[in-house]
Amino acid sequence: MAAVAQDFTAEPVAKQNTTHPLTPLSASEIATTADLLRSVWPAHTDLRFKIITLDEPPKKQMIPYLEASYSGSSLPYIPRKSFTSYYIRNTNRFHEAVVDLSAGKVESNVRLGPNEHGNADYEEILMVEKNALEDEGVKAAIAKLQLPEGTVVCADPWIYGSDGINDDERVFQVFMYMRDPANPSEQDSNHYAFPLPISPVIECNSYKVIRIDYLPTGADNTIHEPRPYQATPANEYIPEHNTLREDIKPLRVTQPEGASFTLTAAGETGHILRWQKWTFLVGFNQREGMVLYDVRYDGRPLFYRLSLSDMSIPYADPRHPFHKKQAFDLGDAGAGVMANNLKLGCDCLGHIQYLSAFFTDDKGVPTPFENCVCIHEQDAGIGWKHTNYRTGRAAVVRNRELVLQSIITVSNYEYILAFMFNQAGEVIYEARATGILSTQPIDHELDQVGVPFGSVVHPGVLAVHHQHIFSLRVDPMLEGHDNRLVYDEAHAMPIDKDWNPHGIGYTVSETVVEKSSGVDLDTSVNRTFKIQNAGVRNPINGKPVAYKIHVPDFQKILAHPSSYHHKRAEFADHNIYVTSHKDRELYAGGWYTNQSRGGKGVRSWADRKDNVKDTDIVVWVQFGINHVPRIEDFPVMPCEIIKVSLKPVNFFDKNPALDVPPSEQSFNQSTLVAEQHHQPAVEAVVGGECCADSSSKSKL
Amino acid sequence: MAAVAQDFTAEPVAKQNTTHPLTPLSASEIATTADLLRSVWPAHTDLRFKIITLDEPPKKQMIPYLEASYSGSSLPYIPRKSFTSYYIRNTNRFHEAVVDLSAGKVESNVRLGPNEHGNADYEEILMVEKNALEDEGVKAAIAKLQLPEGTVVCADPWIYGSDGINDDERVFQVFMYMRDPANPSEQDSNHYAFPLPISPVIECNSYKVIRIDYLPTGADNTIHEPRPYQATPANEYIPEHNTLREDIKPLRVTQPEGASFTLTAAGETGHILRWQKWTFLVGFNQREGMVLYDVRYDGRPLFYRLSLSDMSIPYADPRHPFHKKQAFDLGDAGAGVMANNLKLGCDCLGHIQYLSAFFTDDKGVPTPFENCVCIHEQDAGIGWKHTNYRTGRAAVVRNRELVLQSIITVSNYEYILAFMFNQAGEVIYEARATGILSTQPIDHELDQVGVPFGSVVHPGVLAVHHQHIFSLRVDPMLEGHDNRLVYDEAHAMPIDKDWNPHGIGYTVSETVVEKSSGVDLDTSVNRTFKIQNAGVRNPINGKPVAYKIHVPDFQKILAHPSSYHHKRAEFADHNIYVTSHKDRELYAGGWYTNQSRGGKGVRSWADRKDNVKDTDIVVWVQFGINHVPRIEDFPVMPCEIIKVSLKPVNFFDKNPALDVPPSEQSFNQSTLVAEQHHQPAVEAVVGGECCADSSSKSKL
Repeated sequence: MAAVAQDFTAEPVAKQNTTHPLTPLSASEIATTADLLRSVWPAHTDLRFKIITLDEPPKKQMIPYLEASYSGSSLPYIPRKSFTSYYIRNTNRFHEAVVDLSAGKVESNVRLGPNEHGNADYEEILMVEKNALEDEGVKAAIAKLQLPEGTVVCADPWIYGSDGINDDERVFQVFMYMRDPANPSEQDSNHYAFPLPISPVIECNSYKVIRIDYLPTGADNTIHEPRPYQATPANEYIPEHNTLREDIKPLRVTQPEGASFTLTAAGETGHILRWQKWTFLVGFNQREGMVLYDVRYDGRPLFYRLSLSDMSIPYADPRHPFHKKQAFDLGDAGAGVMANNLKLGCDCLGHIQYLSAFFTDDKGVPTPFENCVCIHEQDAGIGWKHTNYRTGRAAVVRNRELVLQSIITVSNYEYILAFMFNQAGEVIYEARATGILSTQPIDHELDQVGVPFGSVVHPGVLAVHHQHIFSLRVDPMLEGHDNRLVYDEAHAMPIDKDWNPHGIGYTVSETVVEKSSGVDLDTSVNRTFKIQNAGVRNPINGKPVAYKIHVPDFQKILAHPSSYHHKRAEFADHNIYVTSHKDRELYAGGWYTNQSRGGKGVRSWADRKDNVKDTDIVVWVQFGINHVPRIEDFPVMPCEIIKVSLKPVNFFDKNPALDVPPSEQSFNQSTLVAEQHHQPAVEAVVGGECCADSSSKSKL
Repeated sequence: MAAVAQDFTAEPVAKQNTTHPLTPLSASEIATTADLLRSVWPAHTDLRFKIITLDEPPKKQMIPYLEASYSGSSLPYIPRKSFTSYYIRNTNRFHEAVVDLSAGKVESNVRLGPNEHGNADYEEILMVEKNALEDEGVKAAIAKLQLPEGTVVCADPWIYGSDGINDDERVFQVFMYMRDPANPSEQDSNHYAFPLPISPVIECNSYKVIRIDYLPTGADNTIHEPRPYQATPANEYIPEHNTLREDIKPLRVTQPEGASFTLTAAGETGHILRWQKWTFLVGFNQREGMVLYDVRYDGRPLFYRLSLSDMSIPYADPRHPFHKKQAFDLGDAGAGVMANNLKLGCDCLGHIQYLSAFFTDDKGVPTPFENCVCIHEQDAGIGWKHTNYRTGRAAVVRNRELVLQSIITVSNYEYILAFMFNQAGEVIYEARATGILSTQPIDHELDQVGVPFGSVVHPGVLAVHHQHIFSLRVDPMLEGHDNRLVYDEAHAMPIDKDWNPHGIGYTVSETVVEKSSGVDLDTSVNRTFKIQNAGVRNPINGKPVAYKIHVPDFQKILAHPSSYHHKRAEFADHNIYVTSHKDRELYAGGWYTNQSRGGKGVRSWADRKDNVKDTDIVVWVQFGINHVPRIEDFPVMPCEIIKVSLKPVNFFDKNPALDVPPSEQSFNQSTLVAEQHHQPAVEAVVGGECCADSSSKSKL
């Protein structure tokens, strides 16, 4: 495989790259961007920065760069640029700008709007909380609730959503809760078990309360006077409030010879990762979190860019103000900037490598985000096996996976997001949904009756049904950049006395998607989508090289096509979208999702009806859950797992995992339960070549 | 939790159980059965035994027994019985018998048929191979193929399937291959890369060749004269014929304090397993392999019996004799009797417990099947997590799973079958398909052209499309034996100016399945099936306790309803079947699948239209793959994984994994990649309570 690292010894050109063009912004690049942007405004103009991130070079520039990096020829010069969105602080004046860091100048700087709003940022969320709790009107409303003496009230700011009614200005809807009144000093009390029926709304210039919404708590729209608080038990998730099971014994993963992957720095914050014939560059940005670039297997190009591009979580309660609940956690907040600082031995098990990043804070100060990605290998069971029953010889290999994991906390909820790679040429994207349900109050007389749009998960606590709909952006480059999307279907052959007399035959047909569009799975015909390069054929069977998309079907967005939920979630109505590639079309729901109105995402791009056959295409893969809460999902939800796989189809000339060394005891050093339980593990029991003489049947 | 072990100190009753009534037959019970059966026949009658297995006691007898075992009261006496199927050797006279082992007598002994045939057994398969290869007609046919000097020909006996044409008698269809002619001494050469165009048919009285079929190798039905062998490369899977990757480093799983589960013997071959509040009895039989009985969580009854009940693999090629290819690996062979002898460090990683079994051979001799089940724990990533962004405190637990795995080899193909349990009250059934594709010859001029019913996976080698359709039998006892099957659906609310003015509301409705029937998934309404006990309500929200069935949708059997493929695979046309419980209704495709004609499986039982509401029901969960072979599936296929989950819904009163101790470095002892790569792992880096002070954002 050709080296990926830049060749700094190449003959000098007019200008030289100082870092890999796709590496995330460094701390100094963030600070320089903020300084340059401030310099174009009058002194003392206070900018509130939302995002300062890499402005990715156009793909047309990057392709020759990547090819040169593989061929070892001199690298074309690509200027380094940043992308920023920001407000003039305490105004609604929202801007986006591109700064040419190489040239040290602001390249563009544009005011946006109307109906384009910035994402929530962390400092702002804390301020909204504080202002809601300190507002005199809110205090008076809380007083009317007659809560027990000493109760601590909490405020959860929510994105306002859109309904087109007086929502041109950016606002926050704040949902109110309290800590367990019986234990108000517990800072980590699960306040979602104690929702309150009031909801202040805060505007985003001076961050003042402009309205207090009262919540319907019955089976209909009626809003009744607050009733005296009726004591209910707490429902805590922190361990000291639970009686823990004591019979789980340690299970440890060790790699005595170290990890099988290597990381090469690409700039201050980028990394080229090599593992088991895989090579790619790991990026990390404010919006998408992990982004993988230039993914190759054994040097063969597969994907130019892979990332989670968007997600939407529309809720089912039709009543004001709940009807506006529709989170777009990536666009409204950011999968990068909400990433957890992962802790050794807690979030990952085994031999772990961490990566860190820098993002701006609201003042343009670069802020370290440590350990926002963990990288490790895991054993995923048997990779393949066959036993020759005649000789009794078994051949078996284990399936080793490489995992890049990031965990995001978006207020009450958590997502555990991971790219995985295996030795059979497969890329897997896994999303785990966990964390705490977004709850609201329900009258106690409905505790045992319920409502059809939600589930009672605790006395007085309703968790409304909601959909989680994700969009994985796959920018392919299978053996080149002219790719197509096709789908296979399996159909029964008609009964025919000569050709199919017994009625059992079936065939598989392939159809090309010609125009950009949203397309759907159909299990009844086993419809399977594949990304293909029709110009490169498998040497054995002549089929075009391809990767198929294994993705579970899901119920599309239930909201009516005329609704803002539907308009905004531009990706939520089809399993797959395919579009022609445009550099700025990165996020399926559009660039700015906060209080968005739709019309700026993948559905709109697909509506161009561009040719997508044998050209540079982007494939958007949707997956999701209709989450009908169980009581078992509270107070914190056991992970719900969805996996999407990209698997080679006639891309290789045989099983690419054929060269994985056999699974052997000398390597694996497993132990028998009957043995003494002391480490280091004994390795005697079975010889190193155990699998070479294993028999499928003991009597052989 | 009440003790499960039998109370042998209970006051004496007239008769006492000598073993747990559900424990598999011991070696001596097998031998005694064979002896007793021989004793009812004239001396020198030679019996060919197919199956000698536990005749499970009627559920009506077992329920009081299991209740008594939990309550500690005296155990009712249940006689011990065996079930046998056998032939009078070298005849078509097929019998089934029940032997009362407690009474030492044959209770019933019945001749079966017509069109009821026994499964293939191992000794028979070897004999069919041998006789096919030694047949003079076959030798002459092989000679005509003009294979290279020294070529070794192999014979793969196949179940004949059914087409209603001269197939009342039991026969084998034998497919022929050769080892790599360039390397004929390699016993483990992948002969599936060298299929031959002849196929002898062997009858099952004297096991003689009765016919030689010539195979169509073109794009149509034409059978042409064999052409001279054209040398093609080998395609070997054994490691010494491959250049192995050398950059994968060891990854080891250790449990320094031992396993978290305990096994208590129940008879010579049964085991009661206890792990993390789970308790169940592990059985293992010839047909189904692993069977789990009396599955309880924290003492609460969940499932009376869980097993893989059947599978069918219909092939797509409409041409004679391929149109008859439809394997029922459980009924035609047996998931128990085909189980691999699992090897430490090869088939399972970590701290492993093995279980063994006894089956009869064809002579009634009990034969040990060692290590046919491996049991171990595994780490399955994060179980749940939440970070309070205000305090930065993360609470996180890992998801530990218990795995019971068995691997079966059915000629060319392998299945890795596992029951898994986790700490959130979930049972998972996982099937991995691997092994070698069943191949057939295709003319070289079609190598780059192909046929629509199969894929060319090697020069001259066609792997025909086929479906794998599995049936998991779930015999529930959720908080008692009166259960029902219901399904939820999510529907958009109509737009209504008062109630749903913004068009975003949706509701979930529940429907009861009243009559035994086959029912289907429908993703468009998020249809989700649940097993419920309507008589037992959740104390918090008043909903009936339930377990939902998470199962991926699949393309139903493509064969026409009038075809034998369709008639025989009685389970393959619906995602779910529900029937009223009958003791002998264990196998979805019927008791005897070899050359079956249909009419004796779950479709037929469902057609009784029995009441299945609030009574003793059985739920049959189908899942499957339409396997359109990729070249990457040859010469051995990377595992294709399907999972079915049974998850609690309002069964508990909160997340049942809430009491899992937090994930802590002192327990997990992970290591940093940057650290020295020496064991034992350092544990200093992060303190034991690392997660208690982890922050979601590094700047907090």
